[in-house]
Amino acid sequence: MKSQNRTVAEQVESLFRCNATPVDLAHDVIDRASECIGLNAFVSLDPDHVVTQAKQSDLRRRRGRPLSPIDGVPIAVKDNFLTQDYPTTACSNVGPGGQPNEDATVVANLRAAGAVIVGKTNMHEWAYGATNTYSRFGATINPHNEDCISGGSSGGSGAAVAAGIVGAALGSDTGGSVRIPASACGVYGFKPSYGRASRHGVLALSWSLDAPGLLSSSIDDIPLLLPYFLGVDKRDPTTSNAKPFSRVQNIDDFKLINLVGTGLERSEEVGQALEKVLGNISSNALSATIPDIQSFFCAWETILHCEASSFHDERMKLYLDKFGETMQSHLLAGQEITGVELLYAQRLRSKFLNILINQLPYWDALVLPTLPVVAPRFGEQTQMFGDRVVSTQDSMTWFCWLGNLAGLPAISIPVATSSSGLPIGLMLMGRPGEDEKLLSIAKSIDKSVGYTQRVWNQ
Amino acid sequence: MKSQNRTVAEQVESLFRCNATPVDLAHDVIDRASECIGLNAFVSLDPDHVVTQAKQSDLRRRRGRPLSPIDGVPIAVKDNFLTQDYPTTACSNVGPGGQPNEDATVVANLRAAGAVIVGKTNMHEWAYGATNTYSRFGATINPHNEDCISGGSSGGSGAAVAAGIVGAALGSDTGGSVRIPASACGVYGFKPSYGRASRHGVLALSWSLDAPGLLSSSIDDIPLLLPYFLGVDKRDPTTSNAKPFSRVQNIDDFKLINLVGTGLERSEEVGQALEKVLGNISSNALSATIPDIQSFFCAWETILHCEASSFHDERMKLYLDKFGETMQSHLLAGQEITGVELLYAQRLRSKFLNILINQLPYWDALVLPTLPVVAPRFGEQTQMFGDRVVSTQDSMTWFCWLGNLAGLPAISIPVATSSSGLPIGLMLMGRPGEDEKLLSIAKSIDKSVGYTQRVWNQ
Repeated sequence: MKSQNRTVAEQVESLFRCNATPVDLAHDVIDRASECIGLNAFVSLDPDHVVTQAKQSDLRRRRGRPLSPIDGVPIAVKDNFLTQDYPTTACSNVGPGGQPNEDATVVANLRAAGAVIVGKTNMHEWAYGATNTYSRFGATINPHNEDCISGGSSGGSGAAVAAGIVGAALGSDTGGSVRIPASACGVYGFKPSYGRASRHGVLALSWSLDAPGLLSSSIDDIPLLLPYFLGVDKRDPTTSNAKPFSRVQNIDDFKLINLVGTGLERSEEVGQALEKVLGNISSNALSATIPDIQSFFCAWETILHCEASSFHDERMKLYLDKFGETMQSHLLAGQEITGVELLYAQRLRSKFLNILINQLPYWDALVLPTLPVVAPRFGEQTQMFGDRVVSTQDSMTWFCWLGNLAGLPAISIPVATSSSGLPIGLMLMGRPGEDEKLLSIAKSIDKSVGYTQRVWNQ
Repeated sequence: MKSQNRTVAEQVESLFRCNATPVDLAHDVIDRASECIGLNAFVSLDPDHVVTQAKQSDLRRRRGRPLSPIDGVPIAVKDNFLTQDYPTTACSNVGPGGQPNEDATVVANLRAAGAVIVGKTNMHEWAYGATNTYSRFGATINPHNEDCISGGSSGGSGAAVAAGIVGAALGSDTGGSVRIPASACGVYGFKPSYGRASRHGVLALSWSLDAPGLLSSSIDDIPLLLPYFLGVDKRDPTTSNAKPFSRVQNIDDFKLINLVGTGLERSEEVGQALEKVLGNISSNALSATIPDIQSFFCAWETILHCEASSFHDERMKLYLDKFGETMQSHLLAGQEITGVELLYAQRLRSKFLNILINQLPYWDALVLPTLPVVAPRFGEQTQMFGDRVVSTQDSMTWFCWLGNLAGLPAISIPVATSSSGLPIGLMLMGRPGEDEKLLSIAKSIDKSVGYTQRVWNQ
């Protein structure tokens, strides 16, 4: 992709000024995807179909009747969003089966705005893992270092954006699955508040934790795309009170809380990068701890496993041994949870939200690193940081699950490069429903950081 | 109690006109309670304390400064509402333990309005049963026939109101526990919409199904007391969007749906009484069935058992054998439910609400008998109706659970007397949050029925 058209914001501008046509952008995507085939970012991409969509967009634009400012912008879609043109496999040997031939609501919204749906991106099987090392199509490679994982479960989307194949890609996030690959691959990742974006047509992992989100090349891409995510969808009752997207105001003064303490440890390098960012912004960040955070992590895990085993109940009966090994053991573990244990987890969840909202001093955003470490290398079973040895899986969700358990909007922004040349991400979480305010805070911090993204093999 | 002061509405009128003082009413209560001691309706009642409260009310009224229209009105309270003056035992040998010495929100609201809290009424152990045959204080007797049960779990409140000891009494309702004794004892029973009335300080049976409610001598008593039930209470987060009580409008034309079909059978006598009522009102009632109602009943039962076992988790570990036999087996059964089963029940619950709200033709109220049979006799293990043999417990909740699973406001009104001289109740359920409309429909039907309550031994 030509460097001036790398971000969605740049693409929108180029299309508007007729410096590029949708067909130009489509060819850029196809060429770049072909160069980056080794990343294994896409599991389906039909060049002819991409060009056909782009030509239709071209025609609309030449007639002076684009459907929206993003008419002609190429968007990649994680393989757990239903799409009417591409198959949806959840990157598993046990496919969803019997799904209607229709677009997920978010995909339908983007398509109705003229976006060119490029293809489906690789993911961790059924989104049930945060490394993108297990997919029926093989692992996704980190564009910054081929020995490193992309993070998951939306790793294909992370790699596709980081490699400059597309400006933005859809992901889903149950415990960080948008933010983890965004951080590991050095791009932006946004998860809306629970219940503000329709989950209709997005294959569930854990329906009370899942949110559809997006990964992008710049902070400015997010407000261009978020209008197609937020708002009421009759087909997802949890959105019944969802406000549509409203304009992002500039905010200069905001209250941050820097979450620290037991259970929130991070590597020295990641910690220093975060401190440096916080030192450079004008707003003050209070530090705060959350008591007994391990019990809330267990609540998140209990709800996740139990809902996933419920969702896959029929598939387990028929095809258990066709799932990957890790997913099999997760699903079996989920079946062993008792109702009383689940209720305990659900009650802890309410308590956790109450702590964040009512017991901490007032905050506009909570600050954490997105990951406690940089992208792990393939084959590493554990990560070491803060005197802990943590499984690579748990190190990926280490901070991210907080936003899902509490239903908060959350964003990962790239803020630094490690000594090993890997990206380091900063996470901000907003108050429930205050997605726009979170974005404006993120934009302010992004600007003050002035981090220039180092795109792989540019 | 003097016959002109039997209902709360009459008491309010008498107090307003100075035809009676709060102390007069208090003595009426004490005298009548003493006459009716054999019913076993009260588990604690301190005559001196009742008179003391009444004297304070007297003083306020004589100074022309009553706290509200109900200042001085005697109210009885089910023994699972916390009260700062009376002990709260849940009528079990395993008491709640460690509860703060404070009033439940509803009790506090009534006390702040000047109501005289008479004492605590008998109930089925921990509200975990619909017959009022098991209480640490012994069973409650039906005022209409000493061989018959009062129904439960708020049986003491039902008997106290039916016998004319008090005009109104508090109850709680998880699967009909307000409406069942109301119907069995021939009084009115109202359960608000879930989440509109604070459960704070009401000992839980199943927190997602429980609602505090009231039993009363007349339909007009309910709008006099409901203002103290409805509205936001910070100590019960489920009320965070609760509207306060608003004035009940008169409604002449309303759409009723008469629920019938498999799983909703009733005895011939009860069925005929209901048909007679529906034949005498001007509004039309459509008939409708609910497919596969047994699965929704199972969902209600699963949620109930699981939440109850969760709530009593610690008590079970310490004191299991001190609970009554039935409660022990319920609690053990609840522990065996898996998380996946509970989630299935929770999903069926959403489906059930969707059927009622979106798939039936539009309705203002759903109509059912409150019970499929009249009050069973002590010792009867089963009831026979509509070619079924059903346990006495399940026959009590036969229709009532629908309102709890869907969170609907619901009312039982007495409409007829059986050939055996026992009351027959009609149940109306409104749309969620439309408590006032339900009341106005109930009032219209109550008027057209013109049923005169036959009070025991008047």
